[in-house]
Amino acid sequence: MLDHPIIQGRGFRNVEDAGQVTGFSFQLRNPNYRGGAASLLDGIEVVVDGERIPDHVPLWTLQGRTLTVEQLRMSTDVRWQLDEPATITVPKPGGLAPGVHSLEVTVHLRRSYFPPPIARSQLTAARKLVLVPPAQDGGIRYGVSTYSYTGDIYTVMTLEDVLADVADLGASGIEILGEGNVPSYPAPDAAWVDSWHRLLERYRLTATNFGSWVDTTRWHDRDLTVEEGAEQLRLDLRLAKELGFTSMRPKFGVVSWDLDPHPIWKGAVERSLDLAAELDVVICPEIHAPTPIKHPVTQAYIDFIARTGTEHFKLLIDTGIFQTAPVLENAEDLGTDDEDEIPPPLRALAVPMADLVEVLPHTHFIQAKFFEIDDRLQDLHVPWADIVPTLERAGWTGWLSSEYEGRREPYRGSDQVRRQHALIRTLARKEAQ
Amino acid sequence: MLDHPIIQGRGFRNVEDAGQVTGFSFQLRNPNYRGGAASLLDGIEVVVDGERIPDHVPLWTLQGRTLTVEQLRMSTDVRWQLDEPATITVPKPGGLAPGVHSLEVTVHLRRSYFPPPIARSQLTAARKLVLVPPAQDGGIRYGVSTYSYTGDIYTVMTLEDVLADVADLGASGIEILGEGNVPSYPAPDAAWVDSWHRLLERYRLTATNFGSWVDTTRWHDRDLTVEEGAEQLRLDLRLAKELGFTSMRPKFGVVSWDLDPHPIWKGAVERSLDLAAELDVVICPEIHAPTPIKHPVTQAYIDFIARTGTEHFKLLIDTGIFQTAPVLENAEDLGTDDEDEIPPPLRALAVPMADLVEVLPHTHFIQAKFFEIDDRLQDLHVPWADIVPTLERAGWTGWLSSEYEGRREPYRGSDQVRRQHALIRTLARKEAQ
Repeated sequence: MLDHPIIQGRGFRNVEDAGQVTGFSFQLRNPNYRGGAASLLDGIEVVVDGERIPDHVPLWTLQGRTLTVEQLRMSTDVRWQLDEPATITVPKPGGLAPGVHSLEVTVHLRRSYFPPPIARSQLTAARKLVLVPPAQDGGIRYGVSTYSYTGDIYTVMTLEDVLADVADLGASGIEILGEGNVPSYPAPDAAWVDSWHRLLERYRLTATNFGSWVDTTRWHDRDLTVEEGAEQLRLDLRLAKELGFTSMRPKFGVVSWDLDPHPIWKGAVERSLDLAAELDVVICPEIHAPTPIKHPVTQAYIDFIARTGTEHFKLLIDTGIFQTAPVLENAEDLGTDDEDEIPPPLRALAVPMADLVEVLPHTHFIQAKFFEIDDRLQDLHVPWADIVPTLERAGWTGWLSSEYEGRREPYRGSDQVRRQHALIRTLARKEAQ
Repeated sequence: MLDHPIIQGRGFRNVEDAGQVTGFSFQLRNPNYRGGAASLLDGIEVVVDGERIPDHVPLWTLQGRTLTVEQLRMSTDVRWQLDEPATITVPKPGGLAPGVHSLEVTVHLRRSYFPPPIARSQLTAARKLVLVPPAQDGGIRYGVSTYSYTGDIYTVMTLEDVLADVADLGASGIEILGEGNVPSYPAPDAAWVDSWHRLLERYRLTATNFGSWVDTTRWHDRDLTVEEGAEQLRLDLRLAKELGFTSMRPKFGVVSWDLDPHPIWKGAVERSLDLAAELDVVICPEIHAPTPIKHPVTQAYIDFIARTGTEHFKLLIDTGIFQTAPVLENAEDLGTDDEDEIPPPLRALAVPMADLVEVLPHTHFIQAKFFEIDDRLQDLHVPWADIVPTLERAGWTGWLSSEYEGRREPYRGSDQVRRQHALIRTLARKEAQ
């Protein structure tokens, strides 16, 4: 699907010619109600961050052909279809800096069926777009979880659109939710499994982590048994493997405000470890606020690793535990913005970096949980300027997988994930220098 | 695609049992970020127009099975997938009246990974939905144009979703825009043509009118020739026929504020009449504001019919000519809401019904143009209470094809078209009594 906004979120990037950045490009869906011959196009004015580029300057790419306005006017067999975005390329030596940019466009179109004095009509659109710098080789690996697109997936984006989005922002890992993104879970048909592998190939993405749930309250009249929990884990391990994933995060039911996992966790995992080893899929319990790193829950996982000596049970850290500010939407829901009045489970945990360093050897995967990054690439809650250098200095080379959890307005997840990657990669580059 | 709002626009209807209306049903997409076992569902409270239905009363349909909450709790192999809406059936003898209804829902869900005191969690949603009464047999035929979904099609709805929408509201005709809804126009591939026919069959829709444009300013340095205009018409006639359409509306470029068509129209149509007859596709020039019925443009079309004696050139009326109020959005654009200051082309034409009656024998198709219908099913601009009885009394049995042209907010076209059909069919029923 195309984005509903005329200016598309995907496709915004600097363009190079012979190793020099010569400008930038972006994509636009046809703002008219019909498609038409490209010869009816009469230029596009672009205003980027207040700088005006006259309407005859940008180049148009349609049906794989890149043309000037003059060439469009003379064209006889080029069209702007309603279901095909145009790529607009704007010359600008040096291009644009990573981050959020304001774009305004005015498309000029000759409409034969308008009275002649107004037949050269204007169609305008504006949107903020995020330019993401390429990821550097080595070090942290960049991924995105489909969770970031909650509400948008299956409504304004297909699963393929999500993968296209992830590839477009220069990430290479894709994390999914088993009971969410696998049609007919737990038994997808073979054709779907094939199409999944084709999508990974098409978008050059690596399947990273597979989200699994062990719903201990699945039955209304009794708790799940150890064996039922193990069955769920083994089912998801097999499915994860079939889809190319190398780790699986089981979310066990909890029995306390501290998120102590249901006691079946240990037995269920133990009964699944052989299969995990056989499939080479790492089971990753999640360290998630309000449970910090220095806590009996985390310690129990580390003790389990030590006791079993397994290579297939490691930690997954959710970066919500590093929050230095609570999420205001929640605080507003509670009718207060006084931090002392916020119930403890919602307060910012602000786990220190030293604690992270201590458990990094046991940490397989990081879910880069976040809620809002503003136009200046400031995260309002999560201290990336502390986290990224900590990971880089420790030489940690696992996946950092974006988990946007802010407001669920259409396309907001997509935009926010781009902001997060722009921010984190900029910090990683600084650290590398 | 599913609607982004949790409560879906399609699927809202009264339900019958043994000839009695026993309640109503609607569809809901999973409001959670993941799918899950249906045994975790703990009821749904529904408030319709302020009337509360307790959470244990509504029935759930998932994977084709209709279950009570108790049955859901006991179920072992039913799931609420993220990509599959649930149908909720609410007992209510007599059902709901045609028109706009306010729905609020609270889904109760046991979430194992929430601390026990809050693990029975609530997910809420609200939306206004439109109940459309069935169309009566005979008389006016009800269709919808894809134009109504401008901005939504290819972004939040596929073409198939549009057809599903049209069928769901009980219309039987589908009108499309050639240069808009035919991928790779003017040469769709055979697979697409096949899929189009399959969609018509699946949704039991009849292809009605095919929108065509003769862009007389297609070349920037000269006007289109008569032969080029005829080529365009013949191309679209063949494509319309291939896709099963029985009429084609060419929109010629114009040369005046009165929308006088470019003089090539006559020659281009004459050179296409034999083909139109051979294919049995009726060419329908559009009578569109600011051109009324009593006007040289309309008269020229009627004279053309008389002179040629053709059966394949007839009028298409756009109901914008009957507007009794100007469209306020436009007036606001002009910086005034004083009707005298509105430029003549945008004023309400208010063509009298007597003029319509006079040309009905020449009228093949009516585009039911409209802009806004409020919650009480009042159209703010177009006098349906005059138009519908006029058509019924004249025994006119052509297609009335919805053309929503109001604000392009996502899903608004879909909702407004349902309102229009609820309004028009209610008027048609009154007239029939």
